[in-house]
Formats: sequence, C-alpha cells, structure tokens
Amino acid sequence: MSLLEDLKWRYATKKMNGTPVAQEKIDYILEAARLAPTSSGLHPFRVIEISDPEWKAKIQPIAYGQSQIVDSSHILVFAAYDAYTKERVEATFAQQAEERGLPLNFADDYKNNLFAQLSALSQEQQFSHAARQAYIGFGLALAAAAEQKIDATPMEGFNNEQLDALLELDKLGLKSVSIIAIGYRDEAHDWLVNMKKVRPLQEDFIIKFN
Amino acid sequence: MSLLEDLKWRYATKKMNGTPVAQEKIDYILEAARLAPTSSGLHPFRVIEISDPEWKAKIQPIAYGQSQIVDSSHILVFAAYDAYTKERVEATFAQQAEERGLPLNFADDYKNNLFAQLSALSQEQQFSHAARQAYIGFGLALAAAAEQKIDATPMEGFNNEQLDALLELDKLGLKSVSIIAIGYRDEAHDWLVNMKKVRPLQEDFIIKFN
Repeated sequence: MSLLEDLKWRYATKKMNGTPVAQEKIDYILEAARLAPTSSGLHPFRVIEISDPEWKAKIQPIAYGQSQIVDSSHILVFAAYDAYTKERVEATFAQQAEERGLPLNFADDYKNNLFAQLSALSQEQQFSHAARQAYIGFGLALAAAAEQKIDATPMEGFNNEQLDALLELDKLGLKSVSIIAIGYRDEAHDWLVNMKKVRPLQEDFIIKFN
Repeated sequence: MSLLEDLKWRYATKKMNGTPVAQEKIDYILEAARLAPTSSGLHPFRVIEISDPEWKAKIQPIAYGQSQIVDSSHILVFAAYDAYTKERVEATFAQQAEERGLPLNFADDYKNNLFAQLSALSQEQQFSHAARQAYIGFGLALAAAAEQKIDATPMEGFNNEQLDALLELDKLGLKSVSIIAIGYRDEAHDWLVNMKKVRPLQEDFIIKFN
C-alpha cells in the first residue's frame, strides 16, 4: 500500500481491544520518529515507551479516563526539550562531526549563530520550537503504525503538567506534548471505525500561486 | 520501499537542479498533508503552492537567499491558523455532520467544550497549537515526497513576517510556519548528498517504562 492508502486506512481509534502489539512493530514505529527531519538536525524530542499496566493505570486519570490508555498495547509519550541548552546544541554538532568523520569545528560558525538565535528566544519560545519538531516525528510515527496495519490514537487530551510530574520529565529537561496509544481496534465497540474520514476540501486546503 | 527506507533515502537537499516535478506528484505530496490527523479534526493549517518563478524570486531574499527557493520546482508554504475563531470551529463540525450524514448538532457538547478551551488560550497560544498540527502535515508531506523519490528541503530559515506580508496571509487568517522546497537534487553540487544521516542514538531517543 502507498502512504496515501495507509493514511486513508488509519483513524483515531476510540476503542482498543487489549491485544499486545509485537515489540518489533513498536520498534518500527519508534524508528520512524527517530528518523524524522528536524530543524538543524537538533532532534529536540524524545519518546517515552510505556507498556507496563501499572504505569498505564496511573496515566489514565491524567488523560481524563480515556480507555485507549489502558486498552492499548503501548503508549508513546512524545516529549520536547524544555529549552535549547548550549550542551544540547554542542552535542548535536559533536555527534555529526564524529559520525561523518569531520573535524569537531566543521560547522562552528553555523553552530554559534544557531545557538545565538535559539538562546535569544524565551524559554517558552524555545519549547514551542522544539514541540513543533516533535510533531514531525509524531506524524511519521502515525504513518508508520498505519503502514504496519497497527491502530494508533493520537492524543492531546491529557494534563501535561501532571504527566510530566508523574514521569519526572523535568529531570530529563523534557515536557510532554502528545501521546500515541498503539494497539488494535475493538471494531464492535468503536463508534468512529465506520465513519467517513473528513478533511478540508482540496480547493480550500491548497492555495495556488502558480 | 517501506516508510523507513524512504526516510533513510531522503535528506534536506541543499542544491536542486531546476528540473520541474510533475503536477501529479505535487498533488500526491499535498494530499498526504491534507490527510494528516489533527487535534479534534480541526486541521488548522493550509498550504500555499508556488511554482511561478516571479513569486519564487520575490521569496528568495526573504529566505536569506537560499538557492532551493528558485532551483526547486515548487515551494509549499505551510501556514497555520492565526487563531481558532468560532466560525472555524463551527465549520469543522458542520462539515463532519454533512459528510457523515449526522444531525448538525451531533456533537454540540464536545464542540462547545472544545471552543471554550481554545478561546481561553491567548491568540499566541492558539497559533502555537495550530502550528503544531501543521507540522504533522509537514512531516507527512516530506514522507510522501520521499516515497515518490522526489527531493524536498524542509525549511524554517525565512522571515515569517515578511513572507506573511508578501503573500497577504493575514487576509486568510494564516501565519507561515515552514516551507518545503520540492525538486530534484543537483548531485554534483550538493555538499550534503553523500553525508551520513545523523540522528539521536536509539538508546538516547527512547525512554522505556516497560
């Protein structure tokens, strides 16, 4: 199937049946997020993979009781950098130099200019920028799940501060932005499964300057 | 090829060769963005498709002279809602009702609660939320280009305010967030083409609570 067919197949699963998803499929989905392109290659987000029922039970009330949290096989919490520190920017360029066999200072002017621009932003603006990058990976993970014919529910409906506190994300310099519940649909009990997918009309979505 | 293979194949093309990309491939890429899942299906972003060399020439200085703006076949400007108005939220639910054959008030409680939550946010927070959704489509469009073996450069390096003014996006209630230049690589003159792709290590990227 093509990407477009996969995107048409998927939907925001409202009811999952509790069947476990094979770890290799979870790894595939995570790999799509890891391969995401991001601004200057900074990749300012991480994914917390959770399958432990006890952790999921603790998260469910934070996600307003949504059933997919516990009926999924895994939940993936996307969490973005709370700020761009000098250490984080330096680490990105040091890894690029090492993996590409370049001198450590191969891009010092670019790096210094980039860090100057990022550190001129407020911490909230830095997080906002990092969060956008996380959503690139979030979208690719949803596409990867669909390609594998694994159901997935993208979720923003949770209390971010409470989830950050539960997972102690501040210790990692991260703040949660979104969740994907991964599992298999419970077709008999999912009100959305047979509903038509609705998107903006093409003529409204695309504005042409050709 | 699989999505992961496509993501490994693609890279942020630094030099394009000016060859036009067939409209059907542009349409395919745009369709991936249109099919993107977004928060409550609000789909709060649009894409401006630009192939006219005169428009691209006007945009190049706004994008700090980057050559891909003019050496690409098309540029796609992703632009998010500047705010969630009542009209926009109503229109989403009205379209869902119509296309799904449901009564217009099928989700009034959900809709009213959603609008109350969104309108409690500052305009900047509303735009920030919309921009994240745009990045889901942005990521899927990059994946769709790679699947078609079309090169694409994701770009944030441009002056958003100047681009918004040039394209008069305020009249549409939109603000630009990112650009994809679409075209074909100029392999002989692209310093990045043969460089190793660098991403966070899997063990750093994934945090397990299993």
